[in-house]
Amino acid sequence: MAKVIIEFHPAAKRTEVERGSALRDAAETAGVELRMPCGGKGRCGKCKVVFERGAPPPTPTELDGITESELAQGYRLACQAQVLQDCAVYVPDAVEAAKILTVGTARRVPLKPAITKRHVDVPRPSVDDLRSDLARILDSLGGAPGRCRIDLHALRQLGHDAREADFEITGVFSSEDLIAFEPGDTTAECYGVAFDIGTTTLAAYLLDLNTGDQLSVAAAVNPQARIGDDVISRISYTMQAPDGLEKLRSMVVGELNRLVGVLAVGAGISRDRIYEAAVVGNTCMLHLFLGIDPKHLAQAPYVPTVSQSLYFPADELGIDINEFGRVHFLPSIAGYVGADTVGMVLATALYEGNELTLAVDIGTNGEIVLGAKNGILACSTAAGPAFEGAHIKHGMRAALGAIDAVWFDDGDIAFSTVSGAKAAGICGSGLLDAIACLVQAGIIEPGGRIVDASEAPVEYGHFQTRLRTGDRGNEFMLAPADETSIGGPIVITQRDVREVQLAKGAIAAGIQTLMERLGVRPGDIDRVVLAGAFGNYVRKESAIMAGMLPDVPLAKVHSVGNAAGEGAKLSLISLDMRKDADHIADFVEYIELTTDLGFHERFADALAFGAGSVLSVQN
Amino acid sequence: MAKVIIEFHPAAKRTEVERGSALRDAAETAGVELRMPCGGKGRCGKCKVVFERGAPPPTPTELDGITESELAQGYRLACQAQVLQDCAVYVPDAVEAAKILTVGTARRVPLKPAITKRHVDVPRPSVDDLRSDLARILDSLGGAPGRCRIDLHALRQLGHDAREADFEITGVFSSEDLIAFEPGDTTAECYGVAFDIGTTTLAAYLLDLNTGDQLSVAAAVNPQARIGDDVISRISYTMQAPDGLEKLRSMVVGELNRLVGVLAVGAGISRDRIYEAAVVGNTCMLHLFLGIDPKHLAQAPYVPTVSQSLYFPADELGIDINEFGRVHFLPSIAGYVGADTVGMVLATALYEGNELTLAVDIGTNGEIVLGAKNGILACSTAAGPAFEGAHIKHGMRAALGAIDAVWFDDGDIAFSTVSGAKAAGICGSGLLDAIACLVQAGIIEPGGRIVDASEAPVEYGHFQTRLRTGDRGNEFMLAPADETSIGGPIVITQRDVREVQLAKGAIAAGIQTLMERLGVRPGDIDRVVLAGAFGNYVRKESAIMAGMLPDVPLAKVHSVGNAAGEGAKLSLISLDMRKDADHIADFVEYIELTTDLGFHERFADALAFGAGSVLSVQN
Repeated sequence: MAKVIIEFHPAAKRTEVERGSALRDAAETAGVELRMPCGGKGRCGKCKVVFERGAPPPTPTELDGITESELAQGYRLACQAQVLQDCAVYVPDAVEAAKILTVGTARRVPLKPAITKRHVDVPRPSVDDLRSDLARILDSLGGAPGRCRIDLHALRQLGHDAREADFEITGVFSSEDLIAFEPGDTTAECYGVAFDIGTTTLAAYLLDLNTGDQLSVAAAVNPQARIGDDVISRISYTMQAPDGLEKLRSMVVGELNRLVGVLAVGAGISRDRIYEAAVVGNTCMLHLFLGIDPKHLAQAPYVPTVSQSLYFPADELGIDINEFGRVHFLPSIAGYVGADTVGMVLATALYEGNELTLAVDIGTNGEIVLGAKNGILACSTAAGPAFEGAHIKHGMRAALGAIDAVWFDDGDIAFSTVSGAKAAGICGSGLLDAIACLVQAGIIEPGGRIVDASEAPVEYGHFQTRLRTGDRGNEFMLAPADETSIGGPIVITQRDVREVQLAKGAIAAGIQTLMERLGVRPGDIDRVVLAGAFGNYVRKESAIMAGMLPDVPLAKVHSVGNAAGEGAKLSLISLDMRKDADHIADFVEYIELTTDLGFHERFADALAFGAGSVLSVQN
Repeated sequence: MAKVIIEFHPAAKRTEVERGSALRDAAETAGVELRMPCGGKGRCGKCKVVFERGAPPPTPTELDGITESELAQGYRLACQAQVLQDCAVYVPDAVEAAKILTVGTARRVPLKPAITKRHVDVPRPSVDDLRSDLARILDSLGGAPGRCRIDLHALRQLGHDAREADFEITGVFSSEDLIAFEPGDTTAECYGVAFDIGTTTLAAYLLDLNTGDQLSVAAAVNPQARIGDDVISRISYTMQAPDGLEKLRSMVVGELNRLVGVLAVGAGISRDRIYEAAVVGNTCMLHLFLGIDPKHLAQAPYVPTVSQSLYFPADELGIDINEFGRVHFLPSIAGYVGADTVGMVLATALYEGNELTLAVDIGTNGEIVLGAKNGILACSTAAGPAFEGAHIKHGMRAALGAIDAVWFDDGDIAFSTVSGAKAAGICGSGLLDAIACLVQAGIIEPGGRIVDASEAPVEYGHFQTRLRTGDRGNEFMLAPADETSIGGPIVITQRDVREVQLAKGAIAAGIQTLMERLGVRPGDIDRVVLAGAFGNYVRKESAIMAGMLPDVPLAKVHSVGNAAGEGAKLSLISLDMRKDADHIADFVEYIELTTDLGFHERFADALAFGAGSVLSVQN
């Protein structure tokens, strides 16, 4: 019997099965759990999965229960599908694995979404009631009087649909605007999606706008990453490649649409009942998503084309939710302090309290915010994607097999990996841990040099065997070949250390610049908030020990997860939060580091390792 | 030398010239005046004409001075073009001829258009001023804060355009919304177009929104008329023909776009500088223009899908003005009392004064409004297109050669024709005149019967030769063959008289219904206003004598021209007028005649001819 290979995403599991096996059996073999509420009878449609490649022909049951457009996109029922060739299958419920950060520390706010629905039984037209279809429906719905913003296509369907539904109508409102009509009572189905568009990763959240509950989550690598790791390489592409801007735009739009499909399948809802998307992201990513030429972001004085909050029809942007749905963009603060930072400030509520808070989001760039109710400063540092694994010899994202934590165990070095898999590389948190340990052990000097084997301190003499000299200088072997899945050892090179120095030095110097501007010292800081994937997984001790963060008591340091995405979700469920977001964008003062006189000196100083090495000692 | 035939529109003149003649010479031969400010040197571009067919290849001068898209549409310079084949040429300046009504009695209102422009010299981005392009421009323009309605495509151009223009920008506003940016100072060029979409005719007016002045006028037959004369035949077409609705929609859109081109050429402006169209029309025509299925207008209880005022992006409707321009629809009152009636009420200001006013607009349908500030009633009668020449043996529109007035001259019958051309048919005003005369002479009995030749009253014995019996009953020869251009006599048939009876009877019965509802008698009426083409050309005496209008002193009767179009123009130049239009649509009470108990009796009575024959005698 021929064998085929099936991969499961996002669990990152693969297995070999006989051609023609049932997908459900293959999943069991691979240890992937499928949800089949109806017992696998093809009735409930809840076990929908997406064949990313190698989809089998749909079965009659699938033809019945899945729309044509979904079938074309590779949707199948896990309880029905067979594995006929090598394939990759996305299982929406098994969100646990790929550690793209999609969880956050939720701030609770009263539900007041922009999108609301109202169901009415409209008086039928009669000789005594000759109002137009629209007028009678608007009167019943109690819509805002005056200037009507109704969509032309909605209007074209209105007369027919209203009669089909015998004038039982549900109106869909976006704030005061009536954006759509639906036959019957559809008030129970009212959903929104929040997008966090990062340079490296995309996260998407499906929320029930009637309850504020999160129904499903999906994440993916930003497909633009194929073009280049960082913002500048994307901008270069738009300037050099024919139709470069349009290509980048459609890449991200396509992937967001795929995520919307995954979310909808995961929650067992129709994407037509999603009426709004709220979007955060860095300024450049939002420009690319909007199809706005970002080149001025790469030229002094680095101003964006647009920074304020915006609304656009979803179909104008190509976002495949309800055809009359809208997309709301949270505002940005500056060219390199985007709506993602506004989202973080919103989610951490740091504009509301008197606690002096330092919030740091380390992604491909590092955004830093410092302040409280009475004043907030923000800056951005070109931290680079080192902490996301780029430019690091064995660097990788925090995915299956990544070394994500490193510590001393009885004088020897120990590590853990994502999902406990065999080590496949090292991600940002593991890298910083490892370097912090090695600095502590004297294997890495405060200036960043990896010592020669002969220079290893006496108490760490057993590390001599791990210290080697490679093509490009000294390196430290973190995992020997037999503990890895890559057919060789995992090492930290001198160059890796330099990359980390540059990244953490930029962040430290940014923090210190804001502290000096605000005239505060580490002891004045009430709270340090670490956002983003790296901020979530990094060990606080390592970050302080490496001199990346001010030397504050550990109890004051909190990881808040994807705070940017949380901000998008908050704005999805609350118009008050949108107002706050606009306030934040106005209120936060942006500090441009490239023209700050002291920044470069602080940066040079901050390259060294050691807690409090740069930042003023706690008072 | 070969001869070719050239026709000039709208002058309706044709001439034969040698192939290869200059168009300017052909125009001179035909007696058509061309405006050539630069003396025919091809420099000023003011003599642009449109070859409706038979366009010659463009000359180098034309290639230089006319855009590609205009060339494709047949635009040429009259001073450059040659006549190489049979052709038809539209000369925008020569608007005098085809008597489609495009003049009205202007009501003067303060200028307060929705569209305004503001030119600003925006501070350039600098290290000390890092606002986004949009923010700095909005701040300079003083645009409305908060939610931004800017068009996505405008935003995509913004960064580039602003820098090209070195941040000298003109903002285009529609009320509070910023709809477009233009490089440099374009405030001098700010235009709007008013459309009156009639069942039979389309009228378009170009206005300078900086001054309120009318710059040019154009009119055309509604191309949908090919499908059917009246509203009901158009609706039937949408129900029966595949894509019928879309076909009708694109017909009217195409023709309106052609008219916009004619207007722009006539005024020597660019259509890109037209930012708004204000639209009136009957309810069905507006539904068709919007692409909304009108079938419910043909089914009891005859409610429209939409009656309120609306705004849509021009490009969504396919209207080829500025790409960010908008189309404003005035509101309608009911299924058969449309925005054209609202325009008439607006233009005649009858909702503002205490004078009891009767306003009648006779087009393909007859709309009747009666009231004053304290209360207004309106109804619509299916007058039919008799007065526009349809269903009348020698009927025609009031175009070249139409008999437009008939009177007694020394006991004999006399007539005039449009432009004094040889008689080609008879239009509505001529028909009603003729019938009024013949009733007065006893040639037509009060009941509508044309007498036999032998029955002619003694004093009109000389009419015996004009009285004949045709295939379908008696007829009266108005113009003998030698006085016509159609190779035979022009006659009024018994059937023609019946058509007029039905039409005028419906109007009279409608008027009487409103008078009874309001409890007024002819003597209470302070003012009678006749709108529309027929209302403009009809002799008041004839209308009263035929019993179509109440028997009021002639001094109280006023022709106001295309009041509907005037209403559209008023709303184009004044937001206050738009508010008034919304008020009118709410305030005017619609009376449905088909369910009015007394209407049918009144209608039967009103078929008879004679002043005051139906309507209560003046008290």
